Amino acid sequence: MSRFCILFTCVRVKVHVKKLSGAVSATFCFTHMTVLTYIEVLVLCQKSARLPKTDFQCLPVFLCVISLPMLANRLRVCVCVQSCHATKPGMLNVHLVPHTHDDVGWLKTVDQYYYGDRNDIQHAGVQYILDSVVDQLLKNQDRRFIYVEMAFFYRWWKSQSSSVQQTVKQLVNEGRLEFVNGGWCMSDEAATHYSAVIDQMTIGLRFLNETFGAFGRPRVTWHIDPFGHAREHASMFAQMGFDGFFFGRLDYQDRARRMRNKEQELLWRASDSLTPPMADLFTGILPNGYNPPEGFCWDQLCSDPPIRDDPDLEDYNVDDVVGCFLVIANSQSTVYKTNHIIMTMGSDFQYENANLWYKNLDKLIHYVNARQANGNKVNVLYSTPSCYLQELHRANLTWPLKTDDFFPYADDAHDFWTGYFTSRPALKRYERISNSNLQTCNQLEVFGGPKAMAVAQHHDAVSGTEKQHVANDYARKLANGWQHCRVLQASHRKCSSRIYCENLNVSVCPLTESSKKFSVNVYNPLARPVTWPVRLPVNGTAYSVSDASGKAVDCQVSMCASSFAVNELVFQVQAPPLGYTTYTVALIQDGPPPAPAQQRAPPVIQNKFLQVTFDPETGLIIELPNDVLLKRPRYNASAGNNVESRQPSGAYIFRPNSSTPFIISRTAKTEIIKTSVVQEVRQWFAPWVSQVVRLYADSRALELEWTVGPVPIDDSLGKEVITRLDTSIKTSEYFYTDSNGREVLQRKKDFWPTWNLKQSEPIAGNYYPINSRAYIKDDVDQLTVVTDRSQGGGSIQNGSLEIMLHHRLLHYDFRGVGEPLNEISGIFPDGLVVRGRLLLTLDPLPTAADMHRPLAEGMVLQPLLTFTAGDLKPNTQLEFSGLLAALPPAVHLLTLSQWDEDSVLLRLEHQYQSSESKVSSQAVTVNLQKLFSTLEVLGVAELNLSANQWKDEMKRFDWTPEKGTGHQCCVS
Amino acid sequence: MSRFCILFTCVRVKVHVKKLSGAVSATFCFTHMTVLTYIEVLVLCQKSARLPKTDFQCLPVFLCVISLPMLANRLRVCVCVQSCHATKPGMLNVHLVPHTHDDVGWLKTVDQYYYGDRNDIQHAGVQYILDSVVDQLLKNQDRRFIYVEMAFFYRWWKSQSSSVQQTVKQLVNEGRLEFVNGGWCMSDEAATHYSAVIDQMTIGLRFLNETFGAFGRPRVTWHIDPFGHAREHASMFAQMGFDGFFFGRLDYQDRARRMRNKEQELLWRASDSLTPPMADLFTGILPNGYNPPEGFCWDQLCSDPPIRDDPDLEDYNVDDVVGCFLVIANSQSTVYKTNHIIMTMGSDFQYENANLWYKNLDKLIHYVNARQANGNKVNVLYSTPSCYLQELHRANLTWPLKTDDFFPYADDAHDFWTGYFTSRPALKRYERISNSNLQTCNQLEVFGGPKAMAVAQHHDAVSGTEKQHVANDYARKLANGWQHCRVLQASHRKCSSRIYCENLNVSVCPLTESSKKFSVNVYNPLARPVTWPVRLPVNGTAYSVSDASGKAVDCQVSMCASSFAVNELVFQVQAPPLGYTTYTVALIQDGPPPAPAQQRAPPVIQNKFLQVTFDPETGLIIELPNDVLLKRPRYNASAGNNVESRQPSGAYIFRPNSSTPFIISRTAKTEIIKTSVVQEVRQWFAPWVSQVVRLYADSRALELEWTVGPVPIDDSLGKEVITRLDTSIKTSEYFYTDSNGREVLQRKKDFWPTWNLKQSEPIAGNYYPINSRAYIKDDVDQLTVVTDRSQGGGSIQNGSLEIMLHHRLLHYDFRGVGEPLNEISGIFPDGLVVRGRLLLTLDPLPTAADMHRPLAEGMVLQPLLTFTAGDLKPNTQLEFSGLLAALPPAVHLLTLSQWDEDSVLLRLEHQYQSSESKVSSQAVTVNLQKLFSTLEVLGVAELNLSANQWKDEMKRFDWTPEKGTGHQCCVS
Repeated sequence: MSRFCILFTCVRVKVHVKKLSGAVSATFCFTHMTVLTYIEVLVLCQKSARLPKTDFQCLPVFLCVISLPMLANRLRVCVCVQSCHATKPGMLNVHLVPHTHDDVGWLKTVDQYYYGDRNDIQHAGVQYILDSVVDQLLKNQDRRFIYVEMAFFYRWWKSQSSSVQQTVKQLVNEGRLEFVNGGWCMSDEAATHYSAVIDQMTIGLRFLNETFGAFGRPRVTWHIDPFGHAREHASMFAQMGFDGFFFGRLDYQDRARRMRNKEQELLWRASDSLTPPMADLFTGILPNGYNPPEGFCWDQLCSDPPIRDDPDLEDYNVDDVVGCFLVIANSQSTVYKTNHIIMTMGSDFQYENANLWYKNLDKLIHYVNARQANGNKVNVLYSTPSCYLQELHRANLTWPLKTDDFFPYADDAHDFWTGYFTSRPALKRYERISNSNLQTCNQLEVFGGPKAMAVAQHHDAVSGTEKQHVANDYARKLANGWQHCRVLQASHRKCSSRIYCENLNVSVCPLTESSKKFSVNVYNPLARPVTWPVRLPVNGTAYSVSDASGKAVDCQVSMCASSFAVNELVFQVQAPPLGYTTYTVALIQDGPPPAPAQQRAPPVIQNKFLQVTFDPETGLIIELPNDVLLKRPRYNASAGNNVESRQPSGAYIFRPNSSTPFIISRTAKTEIIKTSVVQEVRQWFAPWVSQVVRLYADSRALELEWTVGPVPIDDSLGKEVITRLDTSIKTSEYFYTDSNGREVLQRKKDFWPTWNLKQSEPIAGNYYPINSRAYIKDDVDQLTVVTDRSQGGGSIQNGSLEIMLHHRLLHYDFRGVGEPLNEISGIFPDGLVVRGRLLLTLDPLPTAADMHRPLAEGMVLQPLLTFTAGDLKPNTQLEFSGLLAALPPAVHLLTLSQWDEDSVLLRLEHQYQSSESKVSSQAVTVNLQKLFSTLEVLGVAELNLSANQWKDEMKRFDWTPEKGTGHQCCVS
Repeated sequence: MSRFCILFTCVRVKVHVKKLSGAVSATFCFTHMTVLTYIEVLVLCQKSARLPKTDFQCLPVFLCVISLPMLANRLRVCVCVQSCHATKPGMLNVHLVPHTHDDVGWLKTVDQYYYGDRNDIQHAGVQYILDSVVDQLLKNQDRRFIYVEMAFFYRWWKSQSSSVQQTVKQLVNEGRLEFVNGGWCMSDEAATHYSAVIDQMTIGLRFLNETFGAFGRPRVTWHIDPFGHAREHASMFAQMGFDGFFFGRLDYQDRARRMRNKEQELLWRASDSLTPPMADLFTGILPNGYNPPEGFCWDQLCSDPPIRDDPDLEDYNVDDVVGCFLVIANSQSTVYKTNHIIMTMGSDFQYENANLWYKNLDKLIHYVNARQANGNKVNVLYSTPSCYLQELHRANLTWPLKTDDFFPYADDAHDFWTGYFTSRPALKRYERISNSNLQTCNQLEVFGGPKAMAVAQHHDAVSGTEKQHVANDYARKLANGWQHCRVLQASHRKCSSRIYCENLNVSVCPLTESSKKFSVNVYNPLARPVTWPVRLPVNGTAYSVSDASGKAVDCQVSMCASSFAVNELVFQVQAPPLGYTTYTVALIQDGPPPAPAQQRAPPVIQNKFLQVTFDPETGLIIELPNDVLLKRPRYNASAGNNVESRQPSGAYIFRPNSSTPFIISRTAKTEIIKTSVVQEVRQWFAPWVSQVVRLYADSRALELEWTVGPVPIDDSLGKEVITRLDTSIKTSEYFYTDSNGREVLQRKKDFWPTWNLKQSEPIAGNYYPINSRAYIKDDVDQLTVVTDRSQGGGSIQNGSLEIMLHHRLLHYDFRGVGEPLNEISGIFPDGLVVRGRLLLTLDPLPTAADMHRPLAEGMVLQPLLTFTAGDLKPNTQLEFSGLLAALPPAVHLLTLSQWDEDSVLLRLEHQYQSSESKVSSQAVTVNLQKLFSTLEVLGVAELNLSANQWKDEMKRFDWTPEKGTGHQCCVS
């Protein structure tokens, strides 16, 4: 038995720690038990406290000038002095924040951005940015800089000499270089799953912790570029200990209103399950996106006039520049509450030659402040977001409360950024399944290797708004990550002949297709047993399947629905919690193909839970309880040449030509197959659109496997392809979508809770991100659709729910990427073909969450199948579970990952919202000591969500909401 | 009497210095007397030796590590160590020379380039280049950099802190930052006058001397961008003490031949009057213009892939980069003579972020040299032109000798850069007259103020190849310089009411037009008396003019030939050497206008020397001795769309549509005016082309005053306008043009002396720069044309000489300037109108030089007229000469300028080529002690031509020419 410190997350889970050795750590979970959505616990072995532990912790805005580490075990003497520049009370203080925004891949790949390769595509080289900023900070100790993306910083850091590293540490300690956000990347908020976001933040913040100690810990998070903001992100950031959150993009109508009302700084209450202020996050909307004021961009990428202060020369312009700056500053101060304003002095990949910026900023500060001698009341200073935030906090005001989110994002009346919810659906799925495998890997003791997953969380990666060659690079990095994991997997199980079939999703697996006998290992990363249908491509027509105990399992061979393989072998497997089992498959007949698909009218498929009837003419599902109807229409993409606006659809923007979607076909070619394992109806609507409606014998959910592509482009526009469910559910225009796969938010057509929306795009303006599920309901029924990837969707008509599956577009939408979203590759020369699955479940309202929560959990963390040809070696262990028993239904094991040689990081999560289930939303108790079958728990210690701070040391600023503000988002 | 040290230049002038106090200095001129074209002498007062004086002088390639300045008056201890990196004898040594080429104005103005303003036009900011290079040099002491343009460096230097200045001095002392060229700018070679070039070099080199001492003195000159190379430039550089000269551009056929023969490094014998090696200059042609090899440009302005040397990353490319570099280096070594090659690692305005370059160069050197361990024989090093030159010198080889020049320059068969000889004719004239006035100013004790002239020598300024707004800026700077000078003038003469009429060239002078009485002060900057026709715009019809002694002077009033004024008052003035005289003008009648111009057939004008007859039909001169014919045709500009090439004419390139010029008009409207002062025929060929043929009473030269513009552009192409003289002189296709206004070179149609020319452009390929004069001759007669500005011209047919006066073009010639040469301004909204003068003199061969040398001298240094309205104050000195007597005809006073409070810089020049005049080419003697009327000479010391080195300390490398090479250019 391994002896480990373990990690777990409690989501309103009560943890028994009675017999644990660390007395202090034993109390943590108890104190928070009824209120927690997340608790993060690090099992702390006394000898290996790897986190920075300070007895005397400086505030974010102070710096430690004397630090005597770890005398007498934990003694630390630290003298704190102010690292922020002094401000002037009676004046307008303008905080200049030099920064760079370094996309972790967008128009170029991550490597190209780092090195400055392919500057013909975009001039950007992050290695040089960091070189230059460090040099320039050293030239004037007043200067400040913030850095955000650890994917780049880490890479730069490891190539520096120890003397440069020492210099940088000094800059960090003195607050001259400040890290904000601190994740591996700045994650997208619409298309990411919370599990991967937490992981990527943890990797980045851990690097900062281990490199710079407490002074490297970001106090502020910084999502200046993502295109809309998810409430779950704010909730996570709050639980990670951030004091504030700044972003740049929000709906243009929302911004106008907030400017009028001075509501661009607010308190975001980001959960309706967590007790305030646990998920409260102070949120600031930056004045100018993340750019400098017009005329004040002094980067090498800009062309604004530099300050020419030699009075001997013709074009001395100091008076002009100062005058212009004062106008801008005073104007900006009218739309914010305090006598402090912030200006972001930087933009995309700026500061590659930081001298240009700083030389002119030095002069600006000098010449503007010189006016104070003449009574001018503007004070300019170098600053950082934490220094600015500190001043807002000191102002001791009340702030408007917000409880909804910032989706969708429109930057003009016809410019809704809702296309990217679906852009590059194949990459979005690949990212999701990669995360599932990574969690499996982590569970299998992986340390390292998670960086590829972290990078793919970037807001131009999983959002699908990157260039094609960058998407390819992301995919390649994910594939490398898998490869790394498979090696680990094989070594873990001491079985190097084990094969992973990575093309199983398109029914390709040479081993199963060619072997007369093989075994299937099914690893289940969930903390409860799963039942899972396995579909294997085979060339035989009859097989026998037996489980780990040798018992025969019902299985069927049918002709493959796709064009990639001959037949498919289908059977249900059952895998233990956090462990694996093994099935043996043997060919028993290699004769004629299975019987052709049966065709009957009207087709019906059914099991003990459901009966589904099809219209033989149209191929549509016409009968389910409550008459769910399934259609498959399409939209035309806008060519951008109509009267109201020239905006076309693209990678970011969704803008259909018409509000009435075109139906692809009113009839469908249909086949039906019924076996004891599964019954399915296969429907072809067009050569490029088909689906399989599938019902497994013991499933309560109906599976829709859709295949779309190559999308025809003979209209020279391209198309957005949606699936739409029309039902008799009385929705009153409400519908529900999840936020990053976690809490669910209520949506209403043509309505924003916090302001009076003027809807200008009836379709695109009603689309929201669907990360894991969406549902519609009335007083009786709830129809939930669980997705296998992030997609966009909405409810345009009462009782209807639509999801965009794929889009292929021939116009560019003018948001910088510079190419249309027209995915073509070597194996898809005529355009990408995408396949995916939706799980439909129609339930009585009170038990709906009890259905969709485990359904979605299983969709996110899938069993991992591996294969061995022939007979297994004697004494091979066929079955294993890491747990002594399954966790209760409410408890999800989110993370189990090696932290260091003595510790394991564990995140346990209560996965039900506060009142969505009468049973499962209740608090629950887990006994850690009796949890693991092979781990001995030596001690525990609780951390914040991102594992970079002891929970009991996490002290955040208190903020007071304005009375009477805030809309309570009601899900129950 | 002022007591001064004085400066003079001896051009084969013998100087009597018997009574001078400085015994050492008294010997200089004697030793060189029979061989000198230039001698430069600084009058050294013992107490003010401002030049760096070292007893122990380190070679260029050594650095001084211990320097104890000026102990015991002149003792200096200096330990010299090698500042060049070691090379490897048995290997190919590749000298990487990091550099930037910073045009002192081109697409942007000088100020815009310095500050980095208007980066939308071109990304360039010199202040940042110097900031960045200094930072980066400090990061690695192996790194090297060279800097060229003092106009920028001076500006940057004076804004640096003393600690930065100290750092830079250290870098210079250690040879890590090396100055090359060192002039205020990199002068154009085709359109500049030697007088201005010497001045601008002197300003820059003096700044270096006074700032950095001996280690700041450039050893190498560096004309990497000028479009063709003048022999006189090489001669000047040799006399300035440079050890070598590198340039980038030469004719593509010449380059191909030199590559084949390994003749890209050569010895240029740049004068046929000076005894070798006085004007010998080692000349190296750079391998790739001044750019890095293809694929190795790592500036922020480039997009070549950086070296990606992290083996963990996908795109590790070290092996590719090293392999590619070795191929290039080995290939380059096959076209040079030694085992050393040079690579220019930089280009236009590069190194603004020097980190990009150096980081990759560091890696390149590291990885290429690492291959030596595997037996690879290539050694790469940071280097400078002097370090490279040292290795060539050490090789101790013989080098091909060249005695002609590098004009014209073609970079392809139809791409002759001969249009810029004439581009922007108004600016070219303005530059020339500004120089004249500056010399006058200098003589009037000016110190300071000459920088504007220096800047206008830049190869994109006086060449006319800059953008329009930059041309305006140059003109403005010149105007500012004038203004400064006029203030000095006024203060010198203690007369603040003196007015300068800057628009006299277009007959505008409010003072003369409105005053009934005024005086004219005529300052003559030449060292001999001059007679000069004065033409003043007036509104009266009769005036009396009297000279300083009160004697009446013959004068005439005639209707103004131009449209700007009513009448012109014309009279001849006589001014003393290096001094002024005063004329008084009074209106005696304000009645009817002068008699209308007489019209007779056939018109004839004459004086005691010449008779000129005109054809009454065609307006052409039909009778002069030897039947000189004058025509005025035009060319069409090429639209660039014909069969052989798409190259159109532009600011740089001349490429007419046809080899036969179109005649503008076969007839002309003609008027004739004859007075006792002047006789003239006025001819209008078209509304936009006219000329006045003018003969003053006592002149041997015929004046052609041409007016061209606005050039019609209704053909949508534009035109090149030429004047052509067709004569009966038997030229045998030879003709002659001056080099920078000094020595004259022989030219032959379709022929280059040193290689077998394939002529592909019969007109443009036969054009040469004419700075001051061109002539054709046979055994009897010589027809010389003296120009008032730099122009282009050629002799396309036997007996013919043509000069391009103006061109206006609607196509852009693809050489970077990005706009067509279509000069339009506020006062010329329909296109520029340009007026100029040509002086024609037809002489017997033996005395031709005795005519054209003084004629051209007078054209370059014109009398400066200033005016005072009304009566002069009593006791005003009406006449003054700075000389006790005129200098002999052969001696030209080139420079007389305040050096510091105790010293004056004097340049005296023998202005005749070795055998062009039987009388005047002889050696001549000047007695300095008896030269000046108001200066007492305390002592003299001789300097090199650029006044930055004691002549006796000027030691240059010796080079041996290959036997049998060199074409002796014969002028006599």
